Amino acid sequence: MAKAPVLTPRADDFPRWYQDLISKAELADNGPVRGTMVIRPYGYGLWERMQQEMDARIKEAGAQNAYFPLFIPQSYLTKEAEHVEGFAPELAVVTHGGGKELEEPVVVRPTSETIINDYFAKWVQSYRDLPLLINQWANVVRWEMRPRLFLRTSEFLWQEGHTAHATQEDARDYAAHIHKNVYAEFMENVLAMDVVLGRKTPKERFAGAVNTLTLEGMMGDGKALQMGTSHELGQNFAKAFGTQYLSKDGKQEYVWQTSWGSTTRMVGALVMMHGDDNGLRVPPRLAHTQVVVMAIKGDEAVAKVREVGAVLKAAGLRVHIDDRVDTPFGRRAVDWELKGVPARVEIGLRDLENGTAMLARRIPGGKEPVALDALAELLPKALEDDQAQLLRESRERRIARTRDVSTPEEAVEAAATGWARIPWAALGPEGEAKLAEQSVTVRCLVAEDGSVPEADDAPGTVAIVARAY
Amino acid sequence: MAKAPVLTPRADDFPRWYQDLISKAELADNGPVRGTMVIRPYGYGLWERMQQEMDARIKEAGAQNAYFPLFIPQSYLTKEAEHVEGFAPELAVVTHGGGKELEEPVVVRPTSETIINDYFAKWVQSYRDLPLLINQWANVVRWEMRPRLFLRTSEFLWQEGHTAHATQEDARDYAAHIHKNVYAEFMENVLAMDVVLGRKTPKERFAGAVNTLTLEGMMGDGKALQMGTSHELGQNFAKAFGTQYLSKDGKQEYVWQTSWGSTTRMVGALVMMHGDDNGLRVPPRLAHTQVVVMAIKGDEAVAKVREVGAVLKAAGLRVHIDDRVDTPFGRRAVDWELKGVPARVEIGLRDLENGTAMLARRIPGGKEPVALDALAELLPKALEDDQAQLLRESRERRIARTRDVSTPEEAVEAAATGWARIPWAALGPEGEAKLAEQSVTVRCLVAEDGSVPEADDAPGTVAIVARAY
Repeated sequence: MAKAPVLTPRADDFPRWYQDLISKAELADNGPVRGTMVIRPYGYGLWERMQQEMDARIKEAGAQNAYFPLFIPQSYLTKEAEHVEGFAPELAVVTHGGGKELEEPVVVRPTSETIINDYFAKWVQSYRDLPLLINQWANVVRWEMRPRLFLRTSEFLWQEGHTAHATQEDARDYAAHIHKNVYAEFMENVLAMDVVLGRKTPKERFAGAVNTLTLEGMMGDGKALQMGTSHELGQNFAKAFGTQYLSKDGKQEYVWQTSWGSTTRMVGALVMMHGDDNGLRVPPRLAHTQVVVMAIKGDEAVAKVREVGAVLKAAGLRVHIDDRVDTPFGRRAVDWELKGVPARVEIGLRDLENGTAMLARRIPGGKEPVALDALAELLPKALEDDQAQLLRESRERRIARTRDVSTPEEAVEAAATGWARIPWAALGPEGEAKLAEQSVTVRCLVAEDGSVPEADDAPGTVAIVARAY
Repeated sequence: MAKAPVLTPRADDFPRWYQDLISKAELADNGPVRGTMVIRPYGYGLWERMQQEMDARIKEAGAQNAYFPLFIPQSYLTKEAEHVEGFAPELAVVTHGGGKELEEPVVVRPTSETIINDYFAKWVQSYRDLPLLINQWANVVRWEMRPRLFLRTSEFLWQEGHTAHATQEDARDYAAHIHKNVYAEFMENVLAMDVVLGRKTPKERFAGAVNTLTLEGMMGDGKALQMGTSHELGQNFAKAFGTQYLSKDGKQEYVWQTSWGSTTRMVGALVMMHGDDNGLRVPPRLAHTQVVVMAIKGDEAVAKVREVGAVLKAAGLRVHIDDRVDTPFGRRAVDWELKGVPARVEIGLRDLENGTAMLARRIPGGKEPVALDALAELLPKALEDDQAQLLRESRERRIARTRDVSTPEEAVEAAATGWARIPWAALGPEGEAKLAEQSVTVRCLVAEDGSVPEADDAPGTVAIVARAY
C-alpha cells in the first residue's frame, strides 16, 4: 500500500521540504514578530548538545565565558567605520525605556566587538594581561528581510569569541586554531559534516576584519551554507577604542584581535545536510536521544521497554522510553523517523515471547529482528558506523557535485547544481562582481592542496563558487 | 604590621563593601547603558555552575528547555490586565528595525508568559498534551531606575519555567514542587544558603498570578533578598490567550498554569550571604575553582604545583594552577582570598624539601602545613565541612536576628537590624500599607510550624517582615 509522503519530496521542492521538516519534526515555529523564531524542545535539544560540545572545545582552547550587555549605545557602533557601514541596515533600535524617550537611543547587539573593546581597553594594562581570551553565549539581532527558520532569523543564538593578543602572529595563529581545531573538528567529528576550510575574499569579509576564515558546507541541494567564521581583526577595533598595553620594553602598543562565531544556523545545516524524504537524520554523537525504546502495545511491553531502556542507559547510551501505547504505534514510528533518532527498538507481544525486538536504524535504513540481550553490545558499534556513514555521504556528495571550471560563465552554470572550482587568478574581483549579478558568490579561497592560503593572491589559489543560503 | 583593608569593612558601609567586592573580585562591571551589567569571567563562572546544577534539577522535574523570542508585540502585553499594569513602567521598546519605523512597536521581553501562551494555545490540543512543562534560559529587560550590580539590573539572565496542566491541583502541586524540591533544595545544598519558604501577600504577588511562592534569604546586614519565586497563574493567561484542551470527556477546558524564575541576582545573594571583610567565600559544591595550587616562586615550585594539581584533579576536585611566579605572591594570595576560592595550597622552596605545603582554608580561615601526599584524601572532607559551615552560619544569623513582635511599630523597629515575625492577623493589608511608608515589606507568610500556608487567611499565619534589596 503506497502511503502519501509525510513531507514534500526533496526533489520536488527543496525549500518546501525544509519548511515541512522543521515544522513536522517540531524543531521550530515562526515567532509573532517578523523574522523571529520559537525553538521547540526537540530543536533546542539539538542546540544544547551543540553548545555542550562546542563549549568544551572553546574552554580547551583557553577561552573563558563572560557576558556583555544586550544594549549598546548607538555611538559605539560608529567608532569603526567599516563595521557601522556593514551593520547599520540591520539594527533594531530601542528609543524608549522605563516609560520615557531615551536621551541616546541604544541598539540591540548585532555582534559585540564594540562593547567588548570598551572593556578590553579597561582590563588590559600590560603584556601580562595578554592574551585575553573571552567567549560569550548570547542572542543577537540583525533585522532580516527574507527570514527562513534557523538559516536567517532576525534574532538568533550563537557563541561569539573575542580575543586580544600582543602580536599579529599570535592573533593570526589563534584565529586559525579556532577555525581548524575547534570549528572544523566539531563539525566533522560531532555533526558528521564535510566542510571546506578557506578564506573569504575582501568583498565577503566581516565588516571590520582584515581576514575572515570560513567553513562552507554543501547542502542536499548542492547550495553552500557558511557554517562558522573566524576573523583576524588586526588593530582596527583596538585603534577605534584605544585598546593598548604596556609592552615588556615599556611601550604603549595596540593589541591585535580576533573574533569568531557560530550560530543556531547549524541546526538548519543539520537538516539540509543529513535530512532525507522521511525527515531528519541526527548524527549519533550529537543526538540527545540516540535510541528510542518503543512499546508497541500492552502493559507487558511497557514494562519491558522500561527494563530495556534502563539497561541501555547503563551502557552509556542516551535513551528515550516511548510508552505512549494509547497513541497509535504507526504514528509514533513516523514521528521518530521525522525527528531522525538514530535507532528505534520496537517491542511488542510477539517479541516478548521470543526475547527479541525489531531494531530500526534511521541512517542506513531498514529494520531487523535482534536478540534483546545483544542490544547493549551491538548498538554502540552500530551508532559509530552510522556516524561515519553520514560524514562519508556528505563528503562524497560534495566531491561528486563540484566541477573544475575556467571561466565565470562556466562557474555560474556549475552553480545551478553544485559548486565550481576556478583559479582565483582567472576570476578576481571583477569576475566575482559578474557572478554576483547571477546571485552566485565566491564562498572561499583555498590553496591547491586544500589548505587555507596565506593571502588572497598566493600562487595557485582556487575560488570555490556556489549559490548560497 | 597593620595592612590597609582591601575592602571597605562591612560594619562601616555594607553597600560600599558590596560594590568594592564585586569590583575587586572581578565579578562584574557596570555596562555603558544605565542599569546594564558586564559579567566578568569569574562572576560568569559562578553563574554557569548555578545553571548546571539548576538545569539538572529542572530536567529531573520533567521540564524541557526551549527558546522563545526576545521581541514581543506590544499588544500581547495588554491581553492580561494585571500583567500589563505590573510591567508597563519597566519596558524597553523597539520602534525601529532594519532602518525603518516599525508598524507596531515591539517590547523587549520582561518575562515570557504572554508569548509562551500564544504558542501553548497552538501546541495544546488534548489532555494527552498535558502537562506541558517548558523551561527557558534567557536574558530579560526591566528598565531599572536604581540599579545595583546583580541585584537590580535593567538586563538580567535567568531561567523562566512555564507549565500548563489539566487541573488546578496539578498546577498547584507543580508550583510547590519547583519551590521546594528544585529551588530550596538547590539553594540549601549547593549555595549553602538558609532560605525561608513562604507565600507572598496579595500586594506582593507576581502581576497576573493567583499565588506566588517565594524563597527569602537574610543577607549579612540583616536585610532580606527574594531568591526565587514560583507562581500559580490559575487560568488568567489561559483565558487571555485561549489556551484550551479537549478533556477526556470531550469538553473544551482552559489549562491551569504555573511560572517560576530564578536569576543572576543569586550571584549578588552569594556575596551578601557568605562574604566577609576579606572578600567572597564560595561554597565548595558551587565553586568552579575549589582549590588553587599556588607556586610561591621558582621553577621547581612551578613544576611541583602542576604535579600536585594533576593529582588533585584526578581525585575529582575542581583545581586551578597558579604558576604566575612573575606576579608577587602576596598580591595573588589576596586576589584568591577576594575571589573566595575555598582552599589554597601554597608551595615554596622550603616546602619542596619537606614534602609539605601550606593549606589556607578560606571558609573557617587559618593556614597550616600539610603533607603533600595527604591532600587528595584530606581536601574533599575539608570542603564538605566548609560547605556545612556556610549553611550553618547563614541559618544561625537568620535565627539570631529574627524577633517576634506584635505591632507594626515594633516590626519596623526590628527591621532596622533584622527580620520581624508578626501574626498576619495582627497586621493585615492595612498594617502592610503602614510598613510600606517606612520602606519595610512583608517578605512572605509562613505557617506557625514553618511550612507554607495553604491560604493567606489560614489560622496561625505569621508574616515575615523586613527591609529588602
